Amino acid sequence: MTAPAVCVLGLGLIGGSLLRAAETTGRRAFGATKSGADAEQARADGFDVLPTVDAALARAAELDALVVVSVPLPAVDEVLRAVNRVAPRCRLTDVVGVKAPVLDAVVRLAPNARYAGGHPMAGLAASGWAVGDGRLFEKAAWMVSVDEGVDLQVWADVARLALDVGAFVVPATADDHDAAVARISHLPHLLATTLAAVGADGGPLSLTLAAGSFRDGTRVAGSRPELVTAMCEGNKVALLTVLDDALGRLGAARGSLASTGSIGVTVRAGHQGRGALDEFEPPELIADLAAPGILATLRELGRRGGRVTGLADTRSAGGPA
Amino acid sequence: MTAPAVCVLGLGLIGGSLLRAAETTGRRAFGATKSGADAEQARADGFDVLPTVDAALARAAELDALVVVSVPLPAVDEVLRAVNRVAPRCRLTDVVGVKAPVLDAVVRLAPNARYAGGHPMAGLAASGWAVGDGRLFEKAAWMVSVDEGVDLQVWADVARLALDVGAFVVPATADDHDAAVARISHLPHLLATTLAAVGADGGPLSLTLAAGSFRDGTRVAGSRPELVTAMCEGNKVALLTVLDDALGRLGAARGSLASTGSIGVTVRAGHQGRGALDEFEPPELIADLAAPGILATLRELGRRGGRVTGLADTRSAGGPA
Repeated sequence: MTAPAVCVLGLGLIGGSLLRAAETTGRRAFGATKSGADAEQARADGFDVLPTVDAALARAAELDALVVVSVPLPAVDEVLRAVNRVAPRCRLTDVVGVKAPVLDAVVRLAPNARYAGGHPMAGLAASGWAVGDGRLFEKAAWMVSVDEGVDLQVWADVARLALDVGAFVVPATADDHDAAVARISHLPHLLATTLAAVGADGGPLSLTLAAGSFRDGTRVAGSRPELVTAMCEGNKVALLTVLDDALGRLGAARGSLASTGSIGVTVRAGHQGRGALDEFEPPELIADLAAPGILATLRELGRRGGRVTGLADTRSAGGPA
Repeated sequence: MTAPAVCVLGLGLIGGSLLRAAETTGRRAFGATKSGADAEQARADGFDVLPTVDAALARAAELDALVVVSVPLPAVDEVLRAVNRVAPRCRLTDVVGVKAPVLDAVVRLAPNARYAGGHPMAGLAASGWAVGDGRLFEKAAWMVSVDEGVDLQVWADVARLALDVGAFVVPATADDHDAAVARISHLPHLLATTLAAVGADGGPLSLTLAAGSFRDGTRVAGSRPELVTAMCEGNKVALLTVLDDALGRLGAARGSLASTGSIGVTVRAGHQGRGALDEFEPPELIADLAAPGILATLRELGRRGGRVTGLADTRSAGGPA
């Protein structure tokens, strides 16, 4: 079974890296973007960039390509309307950092698409085609949705693409994913942004003394504000929960420092948390998508932080026996 | 004028790196530590480690060496008592991360020492002799105290040592330093520790999805908890001020996200703050310590985030004309 062609819509850091990476896997790969600058640079670099999103979707329909929506959350609806107009039954995935809102939008705006959402956990501090890198996904976690109603054939398409570009696949539901990234991506961005502002308020002496802890802690505050804002606002409910968690912990630390002069409990809890990250060894699975109850198996694997590191070489679900 | 010998008390990451670095400058360098493990490894690596702190101080008195206190804040008093007993009039500096408490302790416990406190802004996530590195201070900021009563000859000794091991010198008063490091070192540690705990609370899915923003944002949470605790608790007043600043900003972000769904103001402020760090170009000075009003000049330079990048080749202040 040949892997389907890949149609990447949006050629910023992630989309641009994916177009490059997909081509190295031997897949036919093409794309489109509304950014004239990105399109021009991608073409100059020798990639197959169609003049419009509609033109790319028409070709995707013709080839039964896997369409990858790689635009920021606020631009997703417009792309999905084009999908529904031009390639309503296409294989569809996306790489947006929040999954429940995209799933809702697909159900609303492109209900006939064969959809399995995804999210590669890859860098964000710079943006645009020019900073893309075909190796961006190597050793990255690539979440692929295991929500009710997911198309298992498209799930396999996305998982195989992720594996072929060097990532490992983390199966998770949209809600579980969004709760997790609120903790490990959106909260870090908000803390980095807060730290950067407090640090800069200290004036030139603070800036000249700033070393590793401040540089590391504020790195992602250098990301494009529109992208960070869209990402955080798109995950409002989950983010509020973890923000309250963080505020509670910081407030407790403040209270303890002010009253008893001690901050050891906070520091030790953080040290343990970082240790948990360093020591975590995820369970791994070669997934057989034709196995009975595979969706439940994948969901359970994801809850345990597990990774799919390969697909068993059987026919994809729904294919002829 | 030959640079004085260097006597390093405490051979952990910073002291151990400094002993290595001082030796490469051609200075006579020796040390002592209460840690049997660090002493043994340092000796095995060929360094001159005396059996006790008292023995090292006796030699320092004999050679008029520069004594560098490189122990964590809670151990400073004990070392200063030894200084006052064995080498009461020695040239004295320290590398402790909080300066006002050390200055107070010196006034109290070693009042006859010729003292100029210091603080190299160099890494902390690992600790002990074994992880030390003679190049740790290259391109690092090394704060040297310009408080009233500082010994200008010792100031020059410390500054020359810092410059010779590749650092640049930032002159600041103890209070200004402590206010600044609360923002750019102690707050980052507390935020990292909070983030690590909140992230780990998310369980295995969070850990397996954790990528750059979480890893960077929690790196210093891996530091030895006793060191971080001592550092933060030793700077309680300044840290409470910036912690309140951070809590206020995070609380405002939370309120805005909950009520209007918007978080753009926070994200843009952080982006600007990080930009200020990246764009900051510190004024630089070759300092002539014999110039009239030099202390005031240095203080003003520090307030503007400036660096001393060399010492003018005149006699040090207080020397014979």
